[in-house]
Amino acid sequence: MLSKNRIKQINALQQKKFRNETQTFVAEGHKVVMELLRSPMKVREIFATGEWIADNAKKFHGVTITEASDMEIKKISAMQTACNVVAEVEMKPEKNFKLNANTLYLALDSVRDPGNFGTIIRIANWFGISTILASDDCVDLYNSKVIQASMGSAFRVDVHYCKLPETLDYAKEIGLPVYGTFLDGDNIFTTKLSNKGVIVLGNEGHGILPETEKQITKRILIPCGTSADKAPESLNVATATSIVCSEFFRQSTFNS
Amino acid sequence: MLSKNRIKQINALQQKKFRNETQTFVAEGHKVVMELLRSPMKVREIFATGEWIADNAKKFHGVTITEASDMEIKKISAMQTACNVVAEVEMKPEKNFKLNANTLYLALDSVRDPGNFGTIIRIANWFGISTILASDDCVDLYNSKVIQASMGSAFRVDVHYCKLPETLDYAKEIGLPVYGTFLDGDNIFTTKLSNKGVIVLGNEGHGILPETEKQITKRILIPCGTSADKAPESLNVATATSIVCSEFFRQSTFNS
Repeated sequence: MLSKNRIKQINALQQKKFRNETQTFVAEGHKVVMELLRSPMKVREIFATGEWIADNAKKFHGVTITEASDMEIKKISAMQTACNVVAEVEMKPEKNFKLNANTLYLALDSVRDPGNFGTIIRIANWFGISTILASDDCVDLYNSKVIQASMGSAFRVDVHYCKLPETLDYAKEIGLPVYGTFLDGDNIFTTKLSNKGVIVLGNEGHGILPETEKQITKRILIPCGTSADKAPESLNVATATSIVCSEFFRQSTFNS
Repeated sequence: MLSKNRIKQINALQQKKFRNETQTFVAEGHKVVMELLRSPMKVREIFATGEWIADNAKKFHGVTITEASDMEIKKISAMQTACNVVAEVEMKPEKNFKLNANTLYLALDSVRDPGNFGTIIRIANWFGISTILASDDCVDLYNSKVIQASMGSAFRVDVHYCKLPETLDYAKEIGLPVYGTFLDGDNIFTTKLSNKGVIVLGNEGHGILPETEKQITKRILIPCGTSADKAPESLNVATATSIVCSEFFRQSTFNS
């Protein structure tokens, strides 16, 4: 049973301001909540139906679990289709971040759609990229749609918000190549890609912004297999990320 | 100005039943409507704000264009955020479909999410795959969210709904390899992939269904760059499609 006040508190976590004040966020749905188990995240409280509790409560040793009716879950959930469990989770502690000259990073320039952002985090996680640099105007990591789309990868990948042009400028100083996708770039399939550097992906509508573009040292392109008059103008940013990350991974791991 | 009756008719096109009865569907938003211009699709009527009409009406020579208020557009739109133009469009005429032994096809087994389906059509279009085989229980091509996510590619790629296991059985008969992604498959980056065949992608939650799996002749795998305990369990179906199509394209076009 949830008090009106508690429902209000949980709902407030849909806003970044309240997430930052309390340093907590909401993760929902069975799959995502189970992913918390194999992560270092600290779960503050779980709200779930009696059925979910009977099946799963034992796995969350030491966590406060509160039974809630379907109606109460619906009230605290941000998902369109009903789920049976909602967790209140502590944000990861801020790390002192420093770029490393031997690492491959992904950088996102003004990616606004939470579904895209979450999907990109999942892709980075799959291909072993453990840190994402995000411009300050990207969507918030703890937005519940980001958490949802990342399917647990948001708990495993570090997302570092920053002034992206400045961070890329520093990346160049320490010798990292800065890749960006452009229509006049070099074909990724015939270009030697480095196993360290920064891969920059741009905004959904506008691509890489001019201030960021100035920092790009290697312009790359995903070639198209259709003649221009019959091809889509572009690829979705999550699609482009998956293809580019996949090719970096292939060249570094299987291209002997 | 739209009559109540016309608003009702347009809204009815959100349902597959009425789309099939009238052989029409709805395409909305400026980008998607402009894509109709460079497609063979027949536009029956356009409903748009005065501003949109002033800027764009000339390009749609011979099409009935009806001015509508923001409020009226909102009433006939299925999009969450407001758009300024909605088009009523005729479905493509059904083609007599026959599998060709020299072609690369994409096949979708029970893909239900319209965003995924539309994104996959866009990916196929990008990599030059001109026909998608879709199991009968896939989401409908003319669902407005599919049209939206495909960003015009739904007008250029043929989607053929079928009993997928039977169609794959015939594909094998005419000598086409049938690829499917599985956790025990061969690494796509180290396996020679054919430039003809069928690439099967599975349902969002359940992957490739058992009846379809029986028809697979080549089990393939997208390798993961992270140790299993720190990796996502799987990739989203649209992400997997982009990586697999990209690698088929790379091998057939740039792997000399």
